[in-house]
Amino acid sequence: MLTFVGLGLYDEKDITLKGLEAVRKADKVYAEFYTSPLGGRTVEKMQRVYGRRISVLERSDLEENAEAAESGGILELAKSKNVVLLCGGDSMVATTHVDLRLRAIDREIKTRLIHAPSILSAVAGLCGLQNYKFGKSATVSPPYPHGCGGVISEVPYDTLKANKERGLHTLLFLDISMSVNEALGLLETVEERRRGTVLKNKKSIIVGIARAGSEEPVVKADYLEGLKSYDFGELPHVLVVPGELHFLEKEALVKIANFPAP
Amino acid sequence: MLTFVGLGLYDEKDITLKGLEAVRKADKVYAEFYTSPLGGRTVEKMQRVYGRRISVLERSDLEENAEAAESGGILELAKSKNVVLLCGGDSMVATTHVDLRLRAIDREIKTRLIHAPSILSAVAGLCGLQNYKFGKSATVSPPYPHGCGGVISEVPYDTLKANKERGLHTLLFLDISMSVNEALGLLETVEERRRGTVLKNKKSIIVGIARAGSEEPVVKADYLEGLKSYDFGELPHVLVVPGELHFLEKEALVKIANFPAP
Repeated sequence: MLTFVGLGLYDEKDITLKGLEAVRKADKVYAEFYTSPLGGRTVEKMQRVYGRRISVLERSDLEENAEAAESGGILELAKSKNVVLLCGGDSMVATTHVDLRLRAIDREIKTRLIHAPSILSAVAGLCGLQNYKFGKSATVSPPYPHGCGGVISEVPYDTLKANKERGLHTLLFLDISMSVNEALGLLETVEERRRGTVLKNKKSIIVGIARAGSEEPVVKADYLEGLKSYDFGELPHVLVVPGELHFLEKEALVKIANFPAP
Repeated sequence: MLTFVGLGLYDEKDITLKGLEAVRKADKVYAEFYTSPLGGRTVEKMQRVYGRRISVLERSDLEENAEAAESGGILELAKSKNVVLLCGGDSMVATTHVDLRLRAIDREIKTRLIHAPSILSAVAGLCGLQNYKFGKSATVSPPYPHGCGGVISEVPYDTLKANKERGLHTLLFLDISMSVNEALGLLETVEERRRGTVLKNKKSIIVGIARAGSEEPVVKADYLEGLKSYDFGELPHVLVVPGELHFLEKEALVKIANFPAP
């Protein structure tokens, strides 16, 4: 049996009691940290709190060698043992995990998910925005190194523009190594190229969030100019671009996210 | 201080270690169960596992009497004590909680959120669908009792139609007391009134999910006709209407959600 256990948002205490129980009962506990940020976790702290030894897997262990018996592959082991795979956020969010689960099912290995807190629902609460008003989300990635300066993906900008046109909020995931400030720089470059006004518009509020799930998350709303130079501190960061705001959402951005009241 | 602690998806073990720690350290622990389903929880089981007495609040305790000192209101107590409010799903998802948090801030009461697993991220993993491809969500509610048969809200149907047109997936929350089958009946009524073909279309896959987060969640994909009579068992239920599917998503619906392969 292969159980996918989410580690949640930030540190070793964001796992659920159900997740901890599965870890303690498992024959073997793996973890991977390449699909989501490590945040405030270390393998040592997790091992201490969970009381189990954890083997960290690389991308190649999950994507190529998973079936190889000779390398002690995770799927091979899961045929006869209770194997847990720990990963940040909620379980089965990354495509890699879906793919691994399908390969397990092909081999008649039972699979199970144990859910955990995710940035998807956390952002709504942290900003005081209504979760059902979020449209499609997207990821801001570093420029692809291609020619001078690299190629910047226009997908995140297009996504938030399409959501804005429908009055919807947008959650933008940032690359594991990227700050709010860097992401805003990339989005602004695309906006200038397009001669757009979605972000520069004086009415466009943007919210930066750092270290969601930690004891001291930073949630700061401002217009583009104000936010570009704001220091959010350590990673991980995400961005939210609100669409049309209900009066309670506006009040929340002022009181919770410190938006400079008009 | 007022700490909002999410209880997570289904039972008393879906709280995080961080949430449990806050409950155990609190001077007073409240819970409310009118904004989200009780699922597999009972107050007795929670009290036993968490080792604390829990006082269950009604809607009026949070919305009208919260400030009343004479009735031992939650905000009055939070001025001088560490108060925890437990609620299903992730914390601060319901408007009631945002409103309560803003009123706490107005009274200079420190607030904190402790996140928990939410249906918002769980559905993607349970179906094997990519989370960033979900558009706006909506709630299917029972007909408003107005005249013969009641008035059925058209918002959920409009939401999924708009998402479908953009190739996006839709999560439809169901009223606390509503089954997948009842919700499909209401959506079909709206579709017939509109002479629409979003759901009846022979290519439109729909996914019903029951008891997400439990040991035995049911995830079943089918066309409308097949799903209408499918027995999902006990509540809570939710619906997902996928938009355009990547080949890995299609494979997942067949292998994970038992979609009848073509």
